[in-house]
Amino acid sequence: MRIVQCVPNISEGRNLEKIHHIIEPLMNQEGFKLISYEPDQDYNRTVITLLGDPEKMIIPLITFFERAIQKIDMNVHKGEHPRMGAVDVVPFIPIQGISMEECIEYAKSLADHVSIMHHIPVFLYAKAAQVKERESLPEIRKGEFEGMKEKIQEPMWKPDYGLPMIHPTFGAVAIGARMPLIAFNIDLETDDEKVANQLAKVIRQSSGGFQFIQAGPAMLKERGHVQVTMNILDYKKNPIYRILETIKMEIKRYGVSVTSSEIVGLLPKEAITDSLKYYFACDKIPFDSKMGLDDLTKHAIHYLKFRDFSPLKIIEAYV
Amino acid sequence: MRIVQCVPNISEGRNLEKIHHIIEPLMNQEGFKLISYEPDQDYNRTVITLLGDPEKMIIPLITFFERAIQKIDMNVHKGEHPRMGAVDVVPFIPIQGISMEECIEYAKSLADHVSIMHHIPVFLYAKAAQVKERESLPEIRKGEFEGMKEKIQEPMWKPDYGLPMIHPTFGAVAIGARMPLIAFNIDLETDDEKVANQLAKVIRQSSGGFQFIQAGPAMLKERGHVQVTMNILDYKKNPIYRILETIKMEIKRYGVSVTSSEIVGLLPKEAITDSLKYYFACDKIPFDSKMGLDDLTKHAIHYLKFRDFSPLKIIEAYV
Repeated sequence: MRIVQCVPNISEGRNLEKIHHIIEPLMNQEGFKLISYEPDQDYNRTVITLLGDPEKMIIPLITFFERAIQKIDMNVHKGEHPRMGAVDVVPFIPIQGISMEECIEYAKSLADHVSIMHHIPVFLYAKAAQVKERESLPEIRKGEFEGMKEKIQEPMWKPDYGLPMIHPTFGAVAIGARMPLIAFNIDLETDDEKVANQLAKVIRQSSGGFQFIQAGPAMLKERGHVQVTMNILDYKKNPIYRILETIKMEIKRYGVSVTSSEIVGLLPKEAITDSLKYYFACDKIPFDSKMGLDDLTKHAIHYLKFRDFSPLKIIEAYV
Repeated sequence: MRIVQCVPNISEGRNLEKIHHIIEPLMNQEGFKLISYEPDQDYNRTVITLLGDPEKMIIPLITFFERAIQKIDMNVHKGEHPRMGAVDVVPFIPIQGISMEECIEYAKSLADHVSIMHHIPVFLYAKAAQVKERESLPEIRKGEFEGMKEKIQEPMWKPDYGLPMIHPTFGAVAIGARMPLIAFNIDLETDDEKVANQLAKVIRQSSGGFQFIQAGPAMLKERGHVQVTMNILDYKKNPIYRILETIKMEIKRYGVSVTSSEIVGLLPKEAITDSLKYYFACDKIPFDSKMGLDDLTKHAIHYLKFRDFSPLKIIEAYV
């Protein structure tokens, strides 16, 4: 069985009717599953998770792009998360029986199709990047939809597929291949965005923090607090517990605390066991490495403060 | 008052008579002080620390270079530490009332003088580097004195000042400007070097840790315990307290604790105040930024666990 995880992000997180219409081509398909879609009202963004045979995903993804063009106008889009396109980013992630090189080929195939069929400019990013500057998605996306009109005309930012002009309502998209990353957010007991920003700086690589962390502040208006939102690009080198505990240490100076945390999309089982081993060792409890997903979930909620978490967030629940 | 710290390193650490003769032009000068010189027999190298007005240092430094030429023949030099010149490296470090840009100008001025007057090729390094490859001193110095004869003739390694040939007995020198670095060691309540190694990996950049930390394990045989030994290359981005607290968090899993810590050489007052502000905020005590060096020392010993520490370890004690 060849399994990839594919995680398209769309710039719509509020209008459920639109979201359902856009993702409908990805549902009930043979060869892969739509595991979840997670609309976020504050981000105004939905993270969609597919798991299965990448060969079977390409044609439904092309239809999905078509619907996003019809339903999303980036000229009127507002949200907390940086974005440059109606479909903002599509990563292919090797999970089982498939190489990174093959994932890069699927990324190129999808890029080729959407640029030709829908006139959307595509940047290949992460492991699929053709130049160093495009390995980093934040680097590509800098300037966002509003700045991309000009940026894409610079020789340095000529897209890898399509013409050097944004689609007038869709914008541009990044398609690529990467290792599994963990989208992890830490909820703070404050609505002060400055605190979230200071904490993000402590952990993120670009400000002197940990090597494999991208992080920024976000205001969750609906929930009434801020969070540090991050990608953990290598959970073996920068395990979840270490980031969480560093934030818990640093936040003490602001006289507030960490209330909870959340995983967006899926995460590999190993990322949980690696972190639980730390807490079990601290508490001098022997760690049972044969623990099932239900028990792992229970302990992760306790130690890592995961909210809205279930075994269905763990990749191994599906494979 | 404009104050820089200037730390020339010479490739002689055994013959005290030679060393005294070479550093004599740096003693009892108006406008700056020779704070210390630390000969190391194994390294066969002496680290000299000057503090004061850089304007006043240039002419004595030129004389100091002249004496190093007279007394040191690199063709017969042997020692543990990598080196490429009789005077191996001269960094200018901004301390007070002076910018990094000005330090770079002083580095260039010294480089200009010694290349013209003494026919020594000079590489500008660290913040003074003109190209990326020369930001790293180890990169410049690779091949050492013995390899430099050939290396300096490569177009890529043409010196910034002087001809592309080494001085036959002196070799070549790196002159530059950099932030103050802090040599910081954390003592662990164990003699297990594996624990020190695991902890070093957590914090050091090269293993995924903090961006400005170089770290490794060390066994202190006399004291009977291990330590994590490190350089903090940018204490503003990676403050002492954050590194110490991260180690205290991580070490919990090994069931041992941090017993004390030490500063090797000097550190700027600001590095202490930045860290004390964290602890005072955690303890909800107002921080008095006019605190004297004696009080800073007392609190640093309490919160940062410094051992063998006194106000004389603080650069501002001399300025």
